[in-house]
Amino acid sequence: MNALVYNGPNAGVSLTTRPKPTASAATDAVVKVTHSTICGTDLHIIKGDVPTCAPGTILGHEGVGVIESTGAGVSAFKPGDPVLISCISACGACAYCRRGMPSHCASGGWILGNSIDGTQAEYVRIPFAENSLYKIPPGVEPATMVMLSDILPTGFECGVLNGKVEPGASVVVVGAGPVGLAALLTAQLYSPGILIVIDPDENRLAVARAFGAEFTGTPGQAEELVREVTEGKGCDTVIEAVGIPATFTQCQELVAPGGVIANVGVHGVKADLHLEKLWDRNVSITTRLVDAVTTPMLLKLLAAKKLPADKLITHTFPFKDMEKAYGTFQAAAENKALKVIIDM
Amino acid sequence: MNALVYNGPNAGVSLTTRPKPTASAATDAVVKVTHSTICGTDLHIIKGDVPTCAPGTILGHEGVGVIESTGAGVSAFKPGDPVLISCISACGACAYCRRGMPSHCASGGWILGNSIDGTQAEYVRIPFAENSLYKIPPGVEPATMVMLSDILPTGFECGVLNGKVEPGASVVVVGAGPVGLAALLTAQLYSPGILIVIDPDENRLAVARAFGAEFTGTPGQAEELVREVTEGKGCDTVIEAVGIPATFTQCQELVAPGGVIANVGVHGVKADLHLEKLWDRNVSITTRLVDAVTTPMLLKLLAAKKLPADKLITHTFPFKDMEKAYGTFQAAAENKALKVIIDM
Amino acid sequence: MNALVYNGPNAGVSLTTRPKPTASAATDAVVKVTHSTICGTDLHIIKGDVPTCAPGTILGHEGVGVIESTGAGVSAFKPGDPVLISCISACGACAYCRRGMPSHCASGGWILGNSIDGTQAEYVRIPFAENSLYKIPPGVEPATMVMLSDILPTGFECGVLNGKVEPGASVVVVGAGPVGLAALLTAQLYSPGILIVIDPDENRLAVARAFGAEFTGTPGQAEELVREVTEGKGCDTVIEAVGIPATFTQCQELVAPGGVIANVGVHGVKADLHLEKLWDRNVSITTRLVDAVTTPMLLKLLAAKKLPADKLITHTFPFKDMEKAYGTFQAAAENKALKVIIDM
Amino acid sequence: MNALVYNGPNAGVSLTTRPKPTASAATDAVVKVTHSTICGTDLHIIKGDVPTCAPGTILGHEGVGVIESTGAGVSAFKPGDPVLISCISACGACAYCRRGMPSHCASGGWILGNSIDGTQAEYVRIPFAENSLYKIPPGVEPATMVMLSDILPTGFECGVLNGKVEPGASVVVVGAGPVGLAALLTAQLYSPGILIVIDPDENRLAVARAFGAEFTGTPGQAEELVREVTEGKGCDTVIEAVGIPATFTQCQELVAPGGVIANVGVHGVKADLHLEKLWDRNVSITTRLVDAVTTPMLLKLLAAKKLPADKLITHTFPFKDMEKAYGTFQAAAENKALKVIIDM
Repeated sequence: MNALVYNGPNAGVSLTTRPKPTASAATDAVVKVTHSTICGTDLHIIKGDVPTCAPGTILGHEGVGVIESTGAGVSAFKPGDPVLISCISACGACAYCRRGMPSHCASGGWILGNSIDGTQAEYVRIPFAENSLYKIPPGVEPATMVMLSDILPTGFECGVLNGKVEPGASVVVVGAGPVGLAALLTAQLYSPGILIVIDPDENRLAVARAFGAEFTGTPGQAEELVREVTEGKGCDTVIEAVGIPATFTQCQELVAPGGVIANVGVHGVKADLHLEKLWDRNVSITTRLVDAVTTPMLLKLLAAKKLPADKLITHTFPFKDMEKAYGTFQAAAENKALKVIIDM
Repeated sequence: MNALVYNGPNAGVSLTTRPKPTASAATDAVVKVTHSTICGTDLHIIKGDVPTCAPGTILGHEGVGVIESTGAGVSAFKPGDPVLISCISACGACAYCRRGMPSHCASGGWILGNSIDGTQAEYVRIPFAENSLYKIPPGVEPATMVMLSDILPTGFECGVLNGKVEPGASVVVVGAGPVGLAALLTAQLYSPGILIVIDPDENRLAVARAFGAEFTGTPGQAEELVREVTEGKGCDTVIEAVGIPATFTQCQELVAPGGVIANVGVHGVKADLHLEKLWDRNVSITTRLVDAVTTPMLLKLLAAKKLPADKLITHTFPFKDMEKAYGTFQAAAENKALKVIIDM
Repeated sequence: MNALVYNGPNAGVSLTTRPKPTASAATDAVVKVTHSTICGTDLHIIKGDVPTCAPGTILGHEGVGVIESTGAGVSAFKPGDPVLISCISACGACAYCRRGMPSHCASGGWILGNSIDGTQAEYVRIPFAENSLYKIPPGVEPATMVMLSDILPTGFECGVLNGKVEPGASVVVVGAGPVGLAALLTAQLYSPGILIVIDPDENRLAVARAFGAEFTGTPGQAEELVREVTEGKGCDTVIEAVGIPATFTQCQELVAPGGVIANVGVHGVKADLHLEKLWDRNVSITTRLVDAVTTPMLLKLLAAKKLPADKLITHTFPFKDMEKAYGTFQAAAENKALKVIIDM
Repeated sequence: MNALVYNGPNAGVSLTTRPKPTASAATDAVVKVTHSTICGTDLHIIKGDVPTCAPGTILGHEGVGVIESTGAGVSAFKPGDPVLISCISACGACAYCRRGMPSHCASGGWILGNSIDGTQAEYVRIPFAENSLYKIPPGVEPATMVMLSDILPTGFECGVLNGKVEPGASVVVVGAGPVGLAALLTAQLYSPGILIVIDPDENRLAVARAFGAEFTGTPGQAEELVREVTEGKGCDTVIEAVGIPATFTQCQELVAPGGVIANVGVHGVKADLHLEKLWDRNVSITTRLVDAVTTPMLLKLLAAKKLPADKLITHTFPFKDMEKAYGTFQAAAENKALKVIIDM
């Protein structure tokens, strides 16, 4: 089969051929992938930031497809079923899975396109299929469903839920890339009173406004803007969706007493925590790798046309142009790219 | 009346005389103080770390006493009532008070012995008396009650509640000073499965064991000890009760995926937050100035002999020896001092 | 001043004159009422169902107006301030107020137009003014604000919050009177996946659809309708907004395993609880007198045009036609009346 | 193998022989039972109250043993492992399992000794072994572990957790049978301030006192006792551990405003709910079939000697005297029996 393979740190990716996988364990399923996408994390892998991903691995942890075959222990799916692939593989039995934290599953977690082969291929083996795949209901656009593999649950769980967004609250999202926008979209499920987005790129701020942001500003404007619209209090929820020290530090200036800084960004280096200012401010700072435990709920809202996930898709490429797709996504700002869909 | 006054940064404290306060506002009460104590925060003030405290202020935000007089709007107390003074003054009406966060009360908060005169005097004026004083039930030892002004609610709210201690959980308290020990005592209200205390001082570790710690170690032993007793997972709750970068940094090594670092320490400088390790660990870091909202509950447990708060008291001084009391408390480790009671 | 007075059980109400009230206690304010309304509870009083309300009492616990005078202890308001009157008077200091349950305030609670004179008069005395009044922000329509005195917080707190409505959840509201519709409006703040309303009156079902209900049916259709749209599971949240045994019993048929029946209705007699069916269904049944603790939040959303509260107003009467207003509201179904506004 | 079989409604039980089960599904394990017990629910089955249990079924849903064999999909256990059997079989993948409510598992739940053969036999087949068995740590007494199959999680989850027992709270347990006593034992994990037990049997009240109850009384004394020790407020948590209308009705008299009635009892008929008194009392009434999601936590506390579960065991019988064991348990009060252990 055709597959997109990681060549090693700073050696790029290649479209090549690989043997079609089989359902080797009783709880496996093999899915014929119909649509996939590229994640910011894939770019981190290419840079060599993810040591668990060995050269030669097929990339990709997002996608939808059709069940090709299943192991002996899988009864929830049968060949031909259209399915959504979650970026998190969950055994369903370990202590982490049982407490609703499969991101840290003892034998799963984020392994697809990382420690095992992923979804940027014609076929993919999915371990623990019953806990890691979801049937696609009739009437839902498959390409849109790809937004449920990772980006929407990540924005929602790491940003909105951890950030305790609630009706009437003031929320600022720092960073209007795909995951920041996913947080922006899903924050609106809780009817916040004030919704602000910060980003240096004016185009992305315009997109944020189209996605529901009421106030937008550049990092240079952020502190004054937040002060103004919150009457000096700061925001109840601050969602960090960039992943660098500068933005994390700014978040500490934007949070109200009693508020939360919900980190979504992937950080490569440490950051300063100004405890000398924050120790008595009654704030929380949260981190999270998506658990994808809200995927079924988001799927229901998507099916009911209550979640405009399709807004996140800006480009579509055929699988044969996968390398070009990577190029487009790597220069996302220049190409005004959010999520690119790959049609297999 | 006699009063202990702050002389300004690094100029020490003096026992002097001041006019007896009056209930100037309708919601005020004046309390004749019978017992007070000294807090680590008082030492911070003396060093000049608390700019809101002007030279000449009477120090102290802890104490018990007897109602001397009340303003026109106070109906819950009458002269002669024995009362506990909370370190937090709460107006009861502002947005912060209503959401249970009077630490940030718009017109109160921690003001006693800070922006207004405090309890290390024969009399003290208490604003918002109905929300800031508690009747002492019969049969409770007044000196013990002083532990409820600040130290026990602080250990409990900032450490145990923020730290989400629960039955069966693993808990490590970093720092076995008075507030760390208060967290240790109150953590046991939730029956954790594993209770560890870290401190460099062997005497304090012995005290911690006497207070219920099952495992103790020095900072140099901390990481190995936690690994060992938690089977490599780390602790669900890590309580930082020191307030310096080194201990805060170590807490990040001790926390389990999905766990909480509950900061109790008063920090004077920033600390490193290793987001490059923590971003995907699903942890929370919390800060809090005590709200003293659990004081009534702690008082019930104390009255029911279910909270051995008296264990925290190591020394007693008459008010005339107040300066000596400060000296003893400033050299706490050397004097094996935890809390010193001042008898007025 | 003119005032609407309760004549005793089944003796109706009369428009009469009474002395203008004064701020007798330090924490009182007197409000010149500009708009009031009639509540279903007022009708219960007239029937003699509320023994705490003595004949001769001025009715009404809802309204907006302007501060006329304040007691010595009130600093948050000054004469001329436009204010919303909450149906709940909160002392802010008792154990119930402190835990966010002022409905059971030791010296307040629902007392207006019940145990003390109420808002259906030119002036009303408001005890504990700082905890029981809210400044009206500029640009908000005062008549609409009256919906925040009782009906919207009641629907939201007793129905939506107690019912744990959340994104994607299935919700059925049984009863499409004013409070049921208030629950319907505010449930949408949490983006439920399925929203059903049950009522015998086709006109009210049409109103419910206009207010956002996706599915509606009569009591005879309820069980089949819920089964159908929830794939046989039942609803996660069942809001009882009628207050009679028949509807409460039906709610037990509509709730899913793990769901909540949130009672909002005022019940005059006991009801059957089918524990023989429910004991192993992991359900909760909740009751609540509104605490009005969410009033500030609802006010923010109203001011931000995110809560279409004006939809609840169907009629407006001048105060001189107060008796006619009662007549219209008593025959609400016939008059297609929801809330009637009284202009003073 | 030898097995205890249900003969049908009111036809008793018989010790007979049956074929040894095999691990027919990939996720099955077969356990050689070493200790079992009899549950009150087994007596309900014998009376014909549980229609899902067909005549001829091997009874029993509690026990410990040793893994005999496993299906192809089971990797967490191997033959020879000592294991605890949970009364709840959990597939780990259905919507109910994922939300932590395996009591309603789509293909499991309470099926052992109910819709499939149970543990009162030499061997038992356990479906979904990885989610339904727990390794027994070294040093734990196997007979004591049997208390974790059902009775302790039931008392804890349905009574203590649903009842929101917390430090300082007032708690009354109505019914001092095994499950009421399990609630009493586990309530103490949260350090309530007041702990009351009600039962008509003086012997059981004496046992309750030995188990930690501070106040005990008969049903006739209950209301006055609760009023007295709670200063007229009622209890924050009322745990119904009997299952008849009379006790459920009394619970409604014992609950404080804002409190919870946590039903644990198995009810055969409906009960009166006095909504005319409760509608404005801000109470919750909860029901629950145990989910056994706290079993791992309780196991940790048991292993750490922090849960005196052995106190619940009053009798031990060899398996050959199983019918006699049933007789003893059926006349529990007369025999002062709590839990009887069956040694295989």
